Amino acid sequence: MEQLSSVNNKLIKDLAKLKQKKYREDTGLYLIEGFHLIEEAFKANLNFVDLLGTEQALNQVAEDYQVDLDGKNIYLINSAIAHHLSSTKNSQNIFMVLKIAQPKQYPFNFGKWVLLDNVSDPGNAGTIIRTADAAGFDGVVLSPNSVDIYNPKTQRAMQGSQFHINIINADLVEVINALNDNAIPVYSSMLDKTAKQLQEFAKVAQLGLVIGNEAHGVSDEIAAICDEKLYIPIKGQAESLNAAVAAGIIIYHFA
Amino acid sequence: MEQLSSVNNKLIKDLAKLKQKKYREDTGLYLIEGFHLIEEAFKANLNFVDLLGTEQALNQVAEDYQVDLDGKNIYLINSAIAHHLSSTKNSQNIFMVLKIAQPKQYPFNFGKWVLLDNVSDPGNAGTIIRTADAAGFDGVVLSPNSVDIYNPKTQRAMQGSQFHINIINADLVEVINALNDNAIPVYSSMLDKTAKQLQEFAKVAQLGLVIGNEAHGVSDEIAAICDEKLYIPIKGQAESLNAAVAAGIIIYHFA
Repeated sequence: MEQLSSVNNKLIKDLAKLKQKKYREDTGLYLIEGFHLIEEAFKANLNFVDLLGTEQALNQVAEDYQVDLDGKNIYLINSAIAHHLSSTKNSQNIFMVLKIAQPKQYPFNFGKWVLLDNVSDPGNAGTIIRTADAAGFDGVVLSPNSVDIYNPKTQRAMQGSQFHINIINADLVEVINALNDNAIPVYSSMLDKTAKQLQEFAKVAQLGLVIGNEAHGVSDEIAAICDEKLYIPIKGQAESLNAAVAAGIIIYHFA
Repeated sequence: MEQLSSVNNKLIKDLAKLKQKKYREDTGLYLIEGFHLIEEAFKANLNFVDLLGTEQALNQVAEDYQVDLDGKNIYLINSAIAHHLSSTKNSQNIFMVLKIAQPKQYPFNFGKWVLLDNVSDPGNAGTIIRTADAAGFDGVVLSPNSVDIYNPKTQRAMQGSQFHINIINADLVEVINALNDNAIPVYSSMLDKTAKQLQEFAKVAQLGLVIGNEAHGVSDEIAAICDEKLYIPIKGQAESLNAAVAAGIIIYHFA
């Protein structure tokens, strides 16, 4: 274990930059924080690149997960450094650096998938991934213009679901074609009422479910190649549902 | 229309204090901001106490809602004042002060109700109220220890649903007893798996649906007097669902 005492330390400066997508892409690394996420990483048997924490926080992790604090790439930091690295107001003073390790390709020949088409809010994307995990889906595909899942807000909203299910960045047209080739139906969730009501849809064993942008919905190009279009009926006077809530209702309908 | 040019103006200082619950209770007033919420207030035919905006914002409201800008209690403000009053990073430069006008009592002899038992996150409470509105529920009851709906974050998450459905602060034991007296079943949503799975529940015409605290669920006292306990099965490895998503899935099951 090495002790770091300044926010100007080279490693700390580099790690703080991982809050930005550019630096995550340059280095292939990302930063997670807080006991729950780090617990999930240990449960998933991931090898960390670096582990950093205040004395109390490191001791807790060492006890809970049999980490040898004399090992390499473990850093004792002070609360000023923790505050500097954290993306939350109240840091839990424990951080882990991990390698970005998403599969580049996937056959899409089986299972239940959520496809995110230009979902732009980091919290929404993370919450939808968490819901897909809870509902027992196999994975989530993000279109190239969707939010980056290594964004700290997305990480926080996922609550560790990135360690449980497949998360893949891919062109949605290619994914939908692959699902279709394997006779897996693909439904597009729509904002407009010309689509079919959700409750008319029977449960299916395998499925692609497209969730669109918060404001604009699924793009015309994608909606056009889906087998069915569905929507959640609004029965009261609200204009719409919160995007993550709407996705949750649809995902659980098919759980 | 009167022009105000300083954040130290007495009225502006008073209105900025309305972000705090204490001052809302002292004055019986609350502040809303942004075009969507103010549009909803006009649609609901509410009389505003004050209307404040920059020239451009006031002109837009005047055009859309036939507001006479020469009328009383309309104030032209600059963007420094707008920034001071706003609870968001990017203010839309339009504000309205309204009277708090919740019914003190309600007979609870009819309809579908969501009962919030110690829901503490302002965004969650607002999102749940918005979902209840979208699902055609008659109203939402908040226990005394739940969040204050006039909190700016709750207002934002509700998206105007407070103008569409009944929102009542009341003791939940009394409300549940009243619902029971009227033969309306009351279900409690639980975090534990000893309860009955959601999909086993048939749709019902009238209902009380208790949603509990984000971390601790429904209190024992309340759960004990409910007719049934229900939970959403977690099929994957996620430990739980986001609280507002979970409430949304349950509410729409009974929509």
